Amino acid sequence: MRTVDWHEGKVRMIDQRKLPWDFEQVVYDDHRQVAQAITEMVVRGAPAIGAAAGFGLALAGLNSKTSESAKLLAALQEAGSDLKAARPTAVNLAWAVDRLLEDARAFDGSADELREHMLAKAQTLADEDVEINKRMGEFGAALISDGDTVLHHCNTGALAAVDWGTALGVIRSAHEQGKRFHVLLDETRPRLQGGRLSAWELNEYGIPFDVIVDSAAGHFMRAGEVDLVLVGSDRTAANGDVANKIGTYQVAVLAKENDVPFYPVVPTSTIDLSLASGDLIPIEERDAAEIQAPYGAKLFPASYPVRNIAFDVTPAKYVTGIVTEFGIARPPFEQSLKQAVSGAFLQPVAK
Amino acid sequence: MRTVDWHEGKVRMIDQRKLPWDFEQVVYDDHRQVAQAITEMVVRGAPAIGAAAGFGLALAGLNSKTSESAKLLAALQEAGSDLKAARPTAVNLAWAVDRLLEDARAFDGSADELREHMLAKAQTLADEDVEINKRMGEFGAALISDGDTVLHHCNTGALAAVDWGTALGVIRSAHEQGKRFHVLLDETRPRLQGGRLSAWELNEYGIPFDVIVDSAAGHFMRAGEVDLVLVGSDRTAANGDVANKIGTYQVAVLAKENDVPFYPVVPTSTIDLSLASGDLIPIEERDAAEIQAPYGAKLFPASYPVRNIAFDVTPAKYVTGIVTEFGIARPPFEQSLKQAVSGAFLQPVAK
Repeated sequence: MRTVDWHEGKVRMIDQRKLPWDFEQVVYDDHRQVAQAITEMVVRGAPAIGAAAGFGLALAGLNSKTSESAKLLAALQEAGSDLKAARPTAVNLAWAVDRLLEDARAFDGSADELREHMLAKAQTLADEDVEINKRMGEFGAALISDGDTVLHHCNTGALAAVDWGTALGVIRSAHEQGKRFHVLLDETRPRLQGGRLSAWELNEYGIPFDVIVDSAAGHFMRAGEVDLVLVGSDRTAANGDVANKIGTYQVAVLAKENDVPFYPVVPTSTIDLSLASGDLIPIEERDAAEIQAPYGAKLFPASYPVRNIAFDVTPAKYVTGIVTEFGIARPPFEQSLKQAVSGAFLQPVAK
Repeated sequence: MRTVDWHEGKVRMIDQRKLPWDFEQVVYDDHRQVAQAITEMVVRGAPAIGAAAGFGLALAGLNSKTSESAKLLAALQEAGSDLKAARPTAVNLAWAVDRLLEDARAFDGSADELREHMLAKAQTLADEDVEINKRMGEFGAALISDGDTVLHHCNTGALAAVDWGTALGVIRSAHEQGKRFHVLLDETRPRLQGGRLSAWELNEYGIPFDVIVDSAAGHFMRAGEVDLVLVGSDRTAANGDVANKIGTYQVAVLAKENDVPFYPVVPTSTIDLSLASGDLIPIEERDAAEIQAPYGAKLFPASYPVRNIAFDVTPAKYVTGIVTEFGIARPPFEQSLKQAVSGAFLQPVAK
């Protein structure tokens, strides 16, 4: 079952706010509902929100009743703006919308044909996501050896993508290859995607794990109990700086301090070559209630002021390598990431 | 109102599990109840559990009805073992019990006189704690300048001591001196002493603060928004290695990486010169439920395996200086800590 798919003329997605307690799916028939679902994190994870935005655009096409292609294109562009505004940090959202709109502008045909074309393209984008993740899984699995302990931050599994996942997809691929290893899952405050979503997934797959509080990751690294760190990325700059869930920067610094390799696993759709450095990536600040009372569980009073920064930037100097669907990019990232984004396979090197 | 005190022949303490929602006091008339309260963290914080253990020993004396001093001494020693076993990492517990028992062994008088003597000594220990904290507050306040932002981990305020506090006591002293500064409070998972207890205290004192998730501390340091880190310590080794609440090590590494001064604030009663290095300090592992469902708030299922390490060790190389009641110890800590423990004042040096 896919995290986001097209079902009977609507967008259907797993409501990730209900997991791990309840498995529920929600359906939307308006792109504004999809945008809101992205903002409210019914669906989250860079690849998953890219696919959701693609289907959202297809919905907007179907909901525009015009018979004129030009008017339909205008409606699509407006819907694209709504969708892109749903979350600022992950680049997939913009990437998916821009890719489909570019295609729409180049399309030569009737309004009805364009509608169908948009849906077909959104579907292709979703299918490609699964394919890309499985390729990253194969490349990345080579980093995991029998007996390893892999530390993981946030959720980057099937729930963060259309299926399979990025960093957790690598873990899944290694598991399917028969490797035996252990996973430490940062619970990932404030929204606890590690303790709720990644734990739910690993439990389903039968991969052994322990959940830890985010502040314990360094202790385990210093104790020599971590062999590899795998994370996702919402946007990677041309120089290899990586924006990802808050806390990733800390994990990377601690990994370097303790000689533990640190690898983000990122589809090339999340690499933004237009940005020279990660410090140019817009960082989302979210509602205080996520910290004070996640999912309604009151941890401390709403009157206590809070800073809720959703993402951070990890400078490339802490990054050992970046797993893409074209192989593992190594420093200097300016060259290797450019090569991957152009679709050229990267030469494998020793761990 | 003191966090722990002697009231009408019983030990009275603030129930810290109920804060910040409810302010309740509990009373105990048996030392085993006191030991259990320490284990269950009704009372926590190195100085506070030291004082609680002292009063617990006084209770054990009163509850032994023997008229023979030797039998009373045996009862006190047994009670001391119960109290010392309540939590393994903080050294104050053992320090307070050992100090009172040594005094009991040297005491020359009747059983009744020894009972009174124990209570008087426990009271002295509690009074001294407040005095010591205020002295540390004065020394440490010199580290804070107008306009600074101070990052703090866990709770080290009045609630962690008999009154005033250690690291948060320094913050309070600087505030009382009229300095204007901001505090970032790590929420401090799993038990959230930052978001619940330190926030409650700063709110009471009128000191401006924001609560952040533990994994955001590095982001704020990298952004240049932190000028100083202040923490407590449950036990400090002779070489300056510091055992403290899980997450302290991470904060220290990130502080060093970002050129932010990192100062533990520790009464000399928490310095254990018998340990050459922090890696000899026993580290408590606590119940999984603290992570899965803190204070009953179900964050993720109890079936998900968890590692709940309560403390970590910060190697001395990350420590800028250690604030004690005899001044600020500087590297090499082998010399400066020994001097402070011997009761000799340390020479002030520039920040």
